[in-house]
Amino acid sequence: MQLGLIGLGRMGFNMRERLRAAGHEVIGYDQHPDVTDVSSLSELVEKLAAPRVVWIMVPVQFTESTIDELSGLLGEGDIVIDGGNSRFSNDKPRADRLGAKGIGYLDVGVSGGVWGRTNGYALMVGGPKQHVEHCMPIFEGLKPEGEFGFAHAGEMPGAGHYAKMVHNGIEYGMMHAFAEGYELLETSEYVDNIPEIIKSWRAGSVVQSWLLDLLDRALDEDPDLARIKGYADDTGEGRWTVEEAIRLAVPMNVIAASLFARFASRQEDSPAMKAVAALRNQFGGHAVKKG
Amino acid sequence: MQLGLIGLGRMGFNMRERLRAAGHEVIGYDQHPDVTDVSSLSELVEKLAAPRVVWIMVPVQFTESTIDELSGLLGEGDIVIDGGNSRFSNDKPRADRLGAKGIGYLDVGVSGGVWGRTNGYALMVGGPKQHVEHCMPIFEGLKPEGEFGFAHAGEMPGAGHYAKMVHNGIEYGMMHAFAEGYELLETSEYVDNIPEIIKSWRAGSVVQSWLLDLLDRALDEDPDLARIKGYADDTGEGRWTVEEAIRLAVPMNVIAASLFARFASRQEDSPAMKAVAALRNQFGGHAVKKG
Amino acid sequence: MQLGLIGLGRMGFNMRERLRAAGHEVIGYDQHPDVTDVSSLSELVEKLAAPRVVWIMVPVQFTESTIDELSGLLGEGDIVIDGGNSRFSNDKPRADRLGAKGIGYLDVGVSGGVWGRTNGYALMVGGPKQHVEHCMPIFEGLKPEGEFGFAHAGEMPGAGHYAKMVHNGIEYGMMHAFAEGYELLETSEYVDNIPEIIKSWRAGSVVQSWLLDLLDRALDEDPDLARIKGYADDTGEGRWTVEEAIRLAVPMNVIAASLFARFASRQEDSPAMKAVAALRNQFGGHAVKKG
Amino acid sequence: MQLGLIGLGRMGFNMRERLRAAGHEVIGYDQHPDVTDVSSLSELVEKLAAPRVVWIMVPVQFTESTIDELSGLLGEGDIVIDGGNSRFSNDKPRADRLGAKGIGYLDVGVSGGVWGRTNGYALMVGGPKQHVEHCMPIFEGLKPEGEFGFAHAGEMPGAGHYAKMVHNGIEYGMMHAFAEGYELLETSEYVDNIPEIIKSWRAGSVVQSWLLDLLDRALDEDPDLARIKGYADDTGEGRWTVEEAIRLAVPMNVIAASLFARFASRQEDSPAMKAVAALRNQFGGHAVKKG
Repeated sequence: MQLGLIGLGRMGFNMRERLRAAGHEVIGYDQHPDVTDVSSLSELVEKLAAPRVVWIMVPVQFTESTIDELSGLLGEGDIVIDGGNSRFSNDKPRADRLGAKGIGYLDVGVSGGVWGRTNGYALMVGGPKQHVEHCMPIFEGLKPEGEFGFAHAGEMPGAGHYAKMVHNGIEYGMMHAFAEGYELLETSEYVDNIPEIIKSWRAGSVVQSWLLDLLDRALDEDPDLARIKGYADDTGEGRWTVEEAIRLAVPMNVIAASLFARFASRQEDSPAMKAVAALRNQFGGHAVKKG
Repeated sequence: MQLGLIGLGRMGFNMRERLRAAGHEVIGYDQHPDVTDVSSLSELVEKLAAPRVVWIMVPVQFTESTIDELSGLLGEGDIVIDGGNSRFSNDKPRADRLGAKGIGYLDVGVSGGVWGRTNGYALMVGGPKQHVEHCMPIFEGLKPEGEFGFAHAGEMPGAGHYAKMVHNGIEYGMMHAFAEGYELLETSEYVDNIPEIIKSWRAGSVVQSWLLDLLDRALDEDPDLARIKGYADDTGEGRWTVEEAIRLAVPMNVIAASLFARFASRQEDSPAMKAVAALRNQFGGHAVKKG
Repeated sequence: MQLGLIGLGRMGFNMRERLRAAGHEVIGYDQHPDVTDVSSLSELVEKLAAPRVVWIMVPVQFTESTIDELSGLLGEGDIVIDGGNSRFSNDKPRADRLGAKGIGYLDVGVSGGVWGRTNGYALMVGGPKQHVEHCMPIFEGLKPEGEFGFAHAGEMPGAGHYAKMVHNGIEYGMMHAFAEGYELLETSEYVDNIPEIIKSWRAGSVVQSWLLDLLDRALDEDPDLARIKGYADDTGEGRWTVEEAIRLAVPMNVIAASLFARFASRQEDSPAMKAVAALRNQFGGHAVKKG
Repeated sequence: MQLGLIGLGRMGFNMRERLRAAGHEVIGYDQHPDVTDVSSLSELVEKLAAPRVVWIMVPVQFTESTIDELSGLLGEGDIVIDGGNSRFSNDKPRADRLGAKGIGYLDVGVSGGVWGRTNGYALMVGGPKQHVEHCMPIFEGLKPEGEFGFAHAGEMPGAGHYAKMVHNGIEYGMMHAFAEGYELLETSEYVDNIPEIIKSWRAGSVVQSWLLDLLDRALDEDPDLARIKGYADDTGEGRWTVEEAIRLAVPMNVIAASLFARFASRQEDSPAMKAVAALRNQFGGHAVKKG
């Protein structure tokens, strides 16, 4: 099947490779001349036969402008897919805007990171069933082999990004559960060989998981994680997950705590703990450390 | 290799099966005449050739009395293994008590649940290296095939149970991360088909794990979990993990929140929330629900 | 000073009383004929001498429409004050809309609940300094006697509601700290007389506070809180506080946990804990309770 | 009334002053010759008329040895009071040990810090009613004037320390609620004058409290808390409170989070966040900061 693919960065580039290896015709566009197949969006659209399918895989701050430009180039019966990390609430306005011109829209949450090219990408898709069916060969080419790795999460625009957001929220919580366990092992006088303990859990245990495999891999490279600072960014999905929990009145202590720990990891000093230290000094005469 | 195995419940029974299938000679003792191979602990000990290895797999409230009885039956050079869910802090006194008679002691954390008989059990062992080496054939018979599933966690008595405790603490956090994500999906108007979304994550995604596979399995059996009440017991390891975090000054918001959620799941009503409702009524005249 | 006051419910009615007792001329408007002084907003505006000051104290869902109507009735130099529980982010658009007609706008967070008529209301005000100064006599009439109870939180529209929002977020955390302590006392076998213990903290202790006084009062009325269900609504400010923490990357485990506890208090059963129970059943054969 | 007082540090010294001002005869013992009234414990005991009352106010690591020494010096009908920060679980063994010699024992939780000399100390007492009644004049001399500030928390040894422990747990949660609110104000672009906002809450608001007064005081001295590092020790009661929550299956997210935040405040770097950073690097190629 023929696909236009916009954005050939770390993710898009690998997706093009995987799709081509699966026998699909992918025409890629990127601002970097080294990787692009065409010189402009309009050339990309010209090279595709109608009804066209165009997959956007650009950094999220460029998604809206790309959709704007595409809406002037595409026409009735074409389909736009956003596979980037958009907030699910942005999908309905896009679907409406494109729909007014007869252009279809699907939102796809894509998981898999740097391993996706080899292992396949887990795909969660939102949008009308007939568009999903039309694009199914592309999804088949990207997803892992076997019965898993693809879901039509819902007909509502945003359903795909929503499912991916929840996936990432869970990921935050799982990672932090491992992180807390690692810190306890690392602090305790009872155990000697943490990498060996982690390794033992990779078979027969309840916590078997890909994240555990990766933790083992990281400890093989750096047994005390001495070369890594305890600092982590966040990329939106964790925040949106907790925002949704608030909107829908869902208790979410675990994922929220994982998110807050990332916030704290980026602080030089904690204003909250300054206030605690100041209060202890006021009522108990407890010494404070100078700031 | 020859092994005495005390306790043939859900875990011990299956372990005997797995070890026998691996070619070991296992003499099992249990109070239930249907499953036991001998009629008493003393008969068990008589049937074993010195140096004897005796593995205890009894409910944790019977472990101390079993060790007491064994310490009168065994002798110099024999080895006792506790594979039950003992608190790690109980192992040092046991090792000392048995050591005074020349009897060795190993503590083993065993993971694998009902699946261990087929898949093998992850084993984390604490105690002296020479005892670990002596018992290695038994460990090889129990552990999963391949390079993973076994660790000598440390020489200190309790190291094995400690590693298992941390494993279970992580398990609490992972389970609750999935649980919060599931609840958000279940509450949101954006997604339709939750079992399909869960299934999609089983390949290509970052949250791939055995627990995810089991969640998928549970949803296949009961798509809305309508037949299950939101009630969960806890079996000690989660509490001990948080107690250790407190002792060692390790921040542990995620695992603690998972534990507290289990506590809350078992309450008919929350005394804390009664107090909140009473306070809101006092200062704001907010209506209360009658208790 | 002359003031138009729209909304004479629990809060507005008491504020009119307090202001009149302080010697101000208050013309109140409400849909309920029993309490209103005028029969319409236009009559209210007619009765005020320019430059007019009109204070809105209506349920938050009616604030925008009230401002719309007022913007057609008021003119250059008049000032509108919103003292309701608006989200801080709604104030800038209102200030801009009214400002286009030369009408000033102040947002005021009001604390004090049913006790404010007697004790005075804590006021946090956002908006331009000259408007704050113009309305100062009204603020003086409403605030408690003495040096505390009033702040000009910032010139930016929303500053007042923002300060009140944070106040309420703190209130959530304080209430839940008391609630957790109360539950521990109520559960422990060590202490006998909880109301007496609570009472003892009201002097000489670090936790002395108005909320403690109210908890003591509630226990005087109902020593076991037996007549109150552990159920609590939330009114927006707690959610907005945590949303702001997420926007600004501020770790906020305590206030978030207080909010999530309210969410949980309103659930018949916990979907998250259903998932935990299902997982425990899958891997360990642990019994589940039937839903 | 006559009292022997052992330990004349920050707390004990001030308590002697307050008791003497109330007309009691206090004989104090301390290792520092500048403050002590007698040169040894035996001299202290000799100077007291039977039945003697001896109040221990020493650092907690010296409490057991002091009780040991006293049990050899005191006799039938005398009473020992521990007013230090002992764990409640230590009181029963002490009561039994002293009781075997006919010596009574009371445990007293004392709140008030450096302000107690002037304002009085909140006292929570555990032990037999007749001992409490016997010592009541001393308690009256120490407690604040008025109806509050004293409770007989229970007959069980430890009841007084238990009530004080819960008090301090609540204190942790309240302080951290203020701390989180302060940090949000300090981070937000919406508000200008944080000290003025804090001050406004001191009258008419729901969060009125002694801790709020102290926060205001701290900000008067250092408006940005620029001279204070965000570092806080903990003194036992917070840990014990959460340990008790675990023992009694009481959900305690708020107080636990406050405790964990103190732990985190003392870390140079977070091992848990190193693990999170390592995992993100492994699956997503996200850059790490060098350790």
